[in-house]
Amino acid sequence: MRSIVILGGPTELFPTDLFLNLNKQKKDPNQKIIGVDHGNLILLNHGIIPDVAVGDYDSLNEHEKKELIQNIHDIRFAQPEKDFTDSEFGLQVALEDFNSEKIKIYGATGGRIDHFLVNLFTFMKPGLKKFATKFELIDRQNIIKFYNPGSYEIQRVSGYKYLAFVNLMETKNLIIKNAKYELYNYNARFPISWSSNEFVKDTVNFSFDTGFLAVIYSKDLDK
Amino acid sequence: MRSIVILGGPTELFPTDLFLNLNKQKKDPNQKIIGVDHGNLILLNHGIIPDVAVGDYDSLNEHEKKELIQNIHDIRFAQPEKDFTDSEFGLQVALEDFNSEKIKIYGATGGRIDHFLVNLFTFMKPGLKKFATKFELIDRQNIIKFYNPGSYEIQRVSGYKYLAFVNLMETKNLIIKNAKYELYNYNARFPISWSSNEFVKDTVNFSFDTGFLAVIYSKDLDK
Repeated sequence: MRSIVILGGPTELFPTDLFLNLNKQKKDPNQKIIGVDHGNLILLNHGIIPDVAVGDYDSLNEHEKKELIQNIHDIRFAQPEKDFTDSEFGLQVALEDFNSEKIKIYGATGGRIDHFLVNLFTFMKPGLKKFATKFELIDRQNIIKFYNPGSYEIQRVSGYKYLAFVNLMETKNLIIKNAKYELYNYNARFPISWSSNEFVKDTVNFSFDTGFLAVIYSKDLDK
Repeated sequence: MRSIVILGGPTELFPTDLFLNLNKQKKDPNQKIIGVDHGNLILLNHGIIPDVAVGDYDSLNEHEKKELIQNIHDIRFAQPEKDFTDSEFGLQVALEDFNSEKIKIYGATGGRIDHFLVNLFTFMKPGLKKFATKFELIDRQNIIKFYNPGSYEIQRVSGYKYLAFVNLMETKNLIIKNAKYELYNYNARFPISWSSNEFVKDTVNFSFDTGFLAVIYSKDLDK
C-alpha cells in the first residue's frame, strides 16, 4: 500500500501535475489519499475525495466544514488536548490503518517557516523515527527523504540536478561517495546543509554511524 | 551601522514594501546594502545600487555580469576554492567592513530547500555564532532571529500573530514564560519547532543553558 498525505501549505508550491495525476489514479486500490485539515479543502477543490480526513478543522469556516462532512465518508477529529500535530495524525493513519510502505507528503513546505520546520523535524520523534525511510516531503522543486544511521545507495531522480545531505542532529562519521563532492568521516555537533552536490553516476553512496539525515533532491525552476 | 543583505531567493517571497523602503532610505548614511550573487541583479532591477556586491556570479550570464560591473562600484569576487558560501561572504562584509550592529537578510527563504537550510544553519558556525543576535532572516511571512544560551526578553512585533521557538541543536533547560504556551526546563537532543505560540503581553521571556535557538515571528498571508 502507498499513501498520499496532503497538508495545507501554499498550493502554488505543489508539483504542477500532482492533482492531474491524483485524478487519474483515483481508482488505484493500492493508493490511499489522506487529507490533513485545510489540505482536505485543497483536495475537494481539485475534485479529489480523500479516503480519510484528519484534523481539528479550526482554520475552516462553517461552510467549509459542511463541505467536508458532505463529501468525505471517513472524517476523524483530533482531540484538543492532543500532544501530536494534525500532520502527525495523518501520518499515523498512513502507517497504522493502511500499513503503507511509501508515504508521500505534499503541502509541507512554504508559508510559515515554523510550520515547515515542524514537518522537517517530525521524523526524528520516537514514534516516527523507525519508519523514517517510508516518508517523502515533496514540493515543486524539492524531494526530501529521511535516513537513520546505516549505509545506503540512492538512485538519481530524473529532472533533479542537485543533491544535498543535511544532518538534522549531531551526527558521526558521515561518508559520501560516488558523488560530485565526496565527504569522509565527518562529525558534526549541529545541523549542516551540505548543498549543491550532484550525481556523477546513476547512484550515490553514503553512510553514517549516529544521528539522522535528510537527503534533498532539488532543481531550479524552469524560467 | 545597519546592513541589508539581499540574497537570490524568489522575489515573490520578499516583503512587498521592501524595495519601496530601500529606495526611500537610499541616502541613509547609517545603512549599507550588500548584494549577494543573483541578489545584486534583483537590486538593480528595482533601481537600487548596492554598496558592495559579493559572489562568484556563476549563475549570471555575460549580459548580467556586465550590468553589475557597469553599475556597482565595489564588486568583490569569491575565490573558487573558498570554504564559505557566497551568503557568508556577504555577512562577513556586513560584520567586518561595516561593523554592523543589525543585519537584515532577505532572499534567504523559498525555492531550493537545501539553500534555505544552509542559511538557517549558518549562524551556528564558529565564525558567526557569537554575532548571532545581530542577524534576522526576513520574508513576507516570517522574521527569524537567533540566540546563544542565556536569558532574554523579546518584544511583540506588530502584525505578526505567531511566535515559535526552534532549538536548532541539542538544547538544555529551555524555559518559555509569559507566552500563550509556557515551557519549563525542557531538554531536547534533536531540533524541535515549538510552533504557533503567541504573545499574551507585550513581552515574552525565555532562557536556555546550552544549544542554539531560532525564534520565528510569523503571520498568515492576508487573503
